[in-house]
Amino acid sequence: MTACKNKQVLLISRPKGIPTADNFQIVESVLPVITRDQVLVRNIYLSVEPAMKGWVSATENYAEPVALNSVMRSFATGVVIDSLHPNFLPGEFVTGLFGWQEYALVEAGVIDRKIAAHSLPISTSLGVLGLNGMTAYFGLLDIGQPLSEETVVVSTAAGAVGSCVGQIAKLKNCHTIGITGSQEKVDLCRQLYQYDQAINYNDEKFEKELAQACPKGIDVYFDNTGGIISDAVLQLLNIGGRIVVCGTSSISNWEEHPIGPRQERKILVNRARMEGFLVFDYKERYPEALAALTEWVSAGLIKYREEILCGIEKAPCSISSLYRGKNLGKCLIQIYKI
Amino acid sequence: MTACKNKQVLLISRPKGIPTADNFQIVESVLPVITRDQVLVRNIYLSVEPAMKGWVSATENYAEPVALNSVMRSFATGVVIDSLHPNFLPGEFVTGLFGWQEYALVEAGVIDRKIAAHSLPISTSLGVLGLNGMTAYFGLLDIGQPLSEETVVVSTAAGAVGSCVGQIAKLKNCHTIGITGSQEKVDLCRQLYQYDQAINYNDEKFEKELAQACPKGIDVYFDNTGGIISDAVLQLLNIGGRIVVCGTSSISNWEEHPIGPRQERKILVNRARMEGFLVFDYKERYPEALAALTEWVSAGLIKYREEILCGIEKAPCSISSLYRGKNLGKCLIQIYKI
Repeated sequence: MTACKNKQVLLISRPKGIPTADNFQIVESVLPVITRDQVLVRNIYLSVEPAMKGWVSATENYAEPVALNSVMRSFATGVVIDSLHPNFLPGEFVTGLFGWQEYALVEAGVIDRKIAAHSLPISTSLGVLGLNGMTAYFGLLDIGQPLSEETVVVSTAAGAVGSCVGQIAKLKNCHTIGITGSQEKVDLCRQLYQYDQAINYNDEKFEKELAQACPKGIDVYFDNTGGIISDAVLQLLNIGGRIVVCGTSSISNWEEHPIGPRQERKILVNRARMEGFLVFDYKERYPEALAALTEWVSAGLIKYREEILCGIEKAPCSISSLYRGKNLGKCLIQIYKI
Repeated sequence: MTACKNKQVLLISRPKGIPTADNFQIVESVLPVITRDQVLVRNIYLSVEPAMKGWVSATENYAEPVALNSVMRSFATGVVIDSLHPNFLPGEFVTGLFGWQEYALVEAGVIDRKIAAHSLPISTSLGVLGLNGMTAYFGLLDIGQPLSEETVVVSTAAGAVGSCVGQIAKLKNCHTIGITGSQEKVDLCRQLYQYDQAINYNDEKFEKELAQACPKGIDVYFDNTGGIISDAVLQLLNIGGRIVVCGTSSISNWEEHPIGPRQERKILVNRARMEGFLVFDYKERYPEALAALTEWVSAGLIKYREEILCGIEKAPCSISSLYRGKNLGKCLIQIYKI
């Protein structure tokens, strides 16, 4: 390999709330020469996640904030183009935290896994067969523990995680209710993701519609939003209800200490369980989840959608676009055609 | 048995918030004649519980509200004085939901258990060897799941439940911190209940003192209060922390929808679990808890205190007295000397 140029997206300032294009800068650097047992990956797809809002914030999070003037943290899927590590060969497809950049020169430990050869597109490794699918799998099954015929409610129901949660719950014979933010997504929930009911939280009658959709109350709430959507759901929680706290996307800024109705009494009276979880804590069980998800997706039992933007120049504004709720599927940026 | 008079405490109106003497009336009724397979119990000790505030409220609770103009619901311990049921004999001591009254003519199903013969006073059957002790036992061990050397924080730490939680946690080799409401109770926590530290939440420096007492953060929070005390505790929660929601005594009125800081993000980032529980759900395992508690109390490993008021006339004002936080131990009303 001769030295080559590497376009990178750097985080140059911390947003207040949702990150916008202004918080990033695209630079071109010279790629260092591969050394020791490193692996050089050419990124094909970059991932865009709601969680990125937390990653770039200096406020409390589960990971160190991305340092200023460093490459934006991101999952990506790419192809090995050079390797000094015996486990990786040029031509193999791999996925990991490769960052928003064209090339990633990484230690082997940064690579999450090779992408198994199957008939599904490699882009799925960042969505339904990646962290999104696995988040749905472990969050719903391990934390939510839905039983047959229970009512499962999902917020951001048409999103990359939510859509998968709804479909796994359906496979477990649950009554599934999706909460989402537009009529277009309501239709997607009903038609593609097979929710029994879907509700637009922007509707004036949202609370009433939710109550009507859950005549037997709510047993499991897979919460991707927090905030007033969750307040409404908790009103309908059954005794022994479980709240899987997976995301808080409805709250744009935690630095201002948002307030809401106290839930202690509800949790007590209903003997409910509210539990946060992080998919990274399940690393040892990723193979289990991937095997199940691959089988379900291959058999057409779980549907997925992707919205693929082209070119690394789309990266800086992609997070804010996600929070505007306009995308209809997993958001990816393709930066290399194979 | 000839017909006899029965003094009873009736609930005559619903309080806004904490029940006061005005909400009750003492009447004298004629005891019906024993019939079928009933048991006639002469109550010796009546119990006074913080939970009674919930029982008399028409707002959501885990039990039907006590009906107006009926005998106040209460646990009591008494002696069988007449029985048409083969399992119960005159002279046996029993405990159950006998109500605030001198005599309880009950079906056998209302009797929770006979009180085993041991060297501890029968009054303990309503406290440390009753629901209070069992609440501590199941809440801490089943929901809180403390590990050796973890930090366990208890609110209402000197109370009938809290004092038992702190001591069981100590038996499990935890670092124990009690939160309570006066210097007198702080001393009690340190000296009698052997907390490693005890803090008065009325102190100006409460939050700072709490942080200093928990240099390794908080792993288990046994929450009897909710409200701003709990808000402070949650600030110090460790990853994987558990919040046992057992009571909400710091909130005097839930009808006004109290608000507070949203905790979703804390729960998520810390992969924490907040879980409500109710001791009545553990009925089948009461013998296990009673055996352990009896052993610990008999061996002097768990200390307890009781404050015994004399005469049924003390019942109507006993709940509000409890909420003023002046009592230093399990509050009982003795209405019969044996």
